[in-house]
Amino acid sequence: MEKKESFKEWSNLYRSTLLDNVILFWMTHSLDEKHGGFFTCLDEKGNVFDTDKFVWLQNRQVWMFSVLFLRVEAKPEWLEMARKGAEFLREHGRDSNGDWYFALDRTGRPLVQPYNIFSDCFAAMAFSQFALASKCDWAQEIALQAYGNVLRRMNNPKGKYSKSVHETRPLKSLAVPMILANLTLEMEWLLDPEKVANILDDTIHQVMNQFLDKETGLIFENVALDGSFVDCFEGRLLNPGHGIEAMWFIMDVANRRNDQTLVNRCVDVVLSILEHSWDKEFEGIFYFLDCKGYPPQQLEWDQKLWWVHLETLVALAMGYQLTRREECLDWYQKVHFYAWNRFYDPENKEWFGYLNRRGEVLLRMKGGKWKGCFHVPRAMMMCWKLFESLSQEELIPNHSKTDS
Amino acid sequence: MEKKESFKEWSNLYRSTLLDNVILFWMTHSLDEKHGGFFTCLDEKGNVFDTDKFVWLQNRQVWMFSVLFLRVEAKPEWLEMARKGAEFLREHGRDSNGDWYFALDRTGRPLVQPYNIFSDCFAAMAFSQFALASKCDWAQEIALQAYGNVLRRMNNPKGKYSKSVHETRPLKSLAVPMILANLTLEMEWLLDPEKVANILDDTIHQVMNQFLDKETGLIFENVALDGSFVDCFEGRLLNPGHGIEAMWFIMDVANRRNDQTLVNRCVDVVLSILEHSWDKEFEGIFYFLDCKGYPPQQLEWDQKLWWVHLETLVALAMGYQLTRREECLDWYQKVHFYAWNRFYDPENKEWFGYLNRRGEVLLRMKGGKWKGCFHVPRAMMMCWKLFESLSQEELIPNHSKTDS
Repeated sequence: MEKKESFKEWSNLYRSTLLDNVILFWMTHSLDEKHGGFFTCLDEKGNVFDTDKFVWLQNRQVWMFSVLFLRVEAKPEWLEMARKGAEFLREHGRDSNGDWYFALDRTGRPLVQPYNIFSDCFAAMAFSQFALASKCDWAQEIALQAYGNVLRRMNNPKGKYSKSVHETRPLKSLAVPMILANLTLEMEWLLDPEKVANILDDTIHQVMNQFLDKETGLIFENVALDGSFVDCFEGRLLNPGHGIEAMWFIMDVANRRNDQTLVNRCVDVVLSILEHSWDKEFEGIFYFLDCKGYPPQQLEWDQKLWWVHLETLVALAMGYQLTRREECLDWYQKVHFYAWNRFYDPENKEWFGYLNRRGEVLLRMKGGKWKGCFHVPRAMMMCWKLFESLSQEELIPNHSKTDS
Repeated sequence: MEKKESFKEWSNLYRSTLLDNVILFWMTHSLDEKHGGFFTCLDEKGNVFDTDKFVWLQNRQVWMFSVLFLRVEAKPEWLEMARKGAEFLREHGRDSNGDWYFALDRTGRPLVQPYNIFSDCFAAMAFSQFALASKCDWAQEIALQAYGNVLRRMNNPKGKYSKSVHETRPLKSLAVPMILANLTLEMEWLLDPEKVANILDDTIHQVMNQFLDKETGLIFENVALDGSFVDCFEGRLLNPGHGIEAMWFIMDVANRRNDQTLVNRCVDVVLSILEHSWDKEFEGIFYFLDCKGYPPQQLEWDQKLWWVHLETLVALAMGYQLTRREECLDWYQKVHFYAWNRFYDPENKEWFGYLNRRGEVLLRMKGGKWKGCFHVPRAMMMCWKLFESLSQEELIPNHSKTDS
């Protein structure tokens, strides 16, 4: 009963923070009324401090408002927000090949070339959900075209902008199969079911048999093409938040396939990563680590980032809902307590994004080049729904379902 | 008299640390006896933790040992160290166009393409001084060829690897004219004097009239092609250590030209940058700042880096020697005290490179991808020589000379 009450309390907290705080912040401050699209460089109180438009974040915000419209409530103003972003991106987001730029200026002129495929990934997610919400055929076409770019470019994601001499030390990166698992579910309604099944099989194979180190239960950021370990800076790199996020993507697929063994393996990995990456001195989850304990190249390695902790909360909530393993709940409480104490801004709206190792705020802005309207509201929405379902679960005896 | 004694004391400290500590560290730990070239990824005690060879650092170490041989003492083992690096680089450093790679594996196979011109800059410096030390014609040829690459590529330093859409927001970066000032002096003996004069005129013009913000006395990292301010992340970026290093490069040129007005302007800028970039709460010089006080993109902005503080010591010692302005000495003492207390490792050899904002060691290695045998020994050598000259200066009434 006590547990049930915390589920109810958490569900309410995440719900009200999402709707009355986080979404309100982006509704109030981020729309560019003049040129369309969104401002994401917003200071502590929401004032715009830079007007450049980063395509990852533009697309993620279109996705977020479309999904709120579809999964939370069909509010016309949410669909309208999504449309303001989608129309701006339709006009300005792509180069003459149809590849998605990385950054645009306020008016939509390109600033940074399509040097990787993640702009295309987030465009596919955004336009797929916007098409569902708006019933616009043009959005559906854009989603399929962007998804086609991802498939076409996934084996050479940086194309001509790649600086590495591939032949000397061929590596592949976790980001590609990981994002493909999530993206394919977002696109499922537009794709051939056999194609979906094949892509998901392949991503699960790559993540769980190649990037996952069976000995330690940790996930590498980069491995050789056959999945073996490469002893160099890139090969030794661990990005705990990325590994944990990958685990809930795979858990989500496993749940739809009723593969409880795979769900359990994912939970094992989440717990191993947390055990290994939790800062025993100052709390919080490290941003980067070297698997041999050597100094990582990333000077920001010991910082505590908002998305790492939010993705962890989603993974633990989902893991608990699907397995009822108490370790998930123990860790959930620890990470929840840390995150709400450190990242949440009780004076203004939204969450801080960047803390130093001690958990003190390092940068006070609420949005920037990499932080937009995405990780905070997505995690709020998912945790709300997961705990709502857990708090009502006496009524539903089947424990193996999630509606996230 | 008291001042003279500290000059003597400092001169001895820098001299003995250079010779008995820093150079010994690299002599003992960095040579790859099997394949040639140098290991630079060395932990706290000098153990190799990664064997990749970063071309900037390989070249800088060749430069350092050549210069020690030329300017400190003609020790055969120093020339031999330089040769082991130069021969490795001659065999493996360049692609088929003669452009210098960014990174090689231990055996010399290319890992990272020539995606900017700084590998070529440091190659020109290294082979120029190695040619002087060794009297090898082939080294001289390589120096001239690398210098030719720099001049050929300087208006488009990243070439096809550039991700920015230049037409939308054309920017140029301080690094290019700044390094050219220093490099051209290093190459002077190989170049036509008129060419040298023209290049130096242009670099002084660019740095002092375009990158220098006359209103604040600070130096921008990036400006528009005409030198005007651009209000975007790159345009607002300040890199205090870089600006201060640029000032001693220009001071060095000004001194050779007996341009005392320019020397004084450089000292003004060094002092403005320090006033603006000194961390009043925890001491030390910030790594990056936004000129409007907005959050910079660089998450490592508040860290304290070894090279920033060492370049500052060189600039202040040189500034004092050339102007006798007491502010230089006041700041020198403050930075000297901070640096020796925080970066110097009394238990093992060499200096730590990376501190957090509080001045605690963030990464314990002595060398890595960016820290090699360069900034510490170069600064030690220059400060030693500058204070040696200052401590003897009663005998020499002319104050406007430096032998650095």
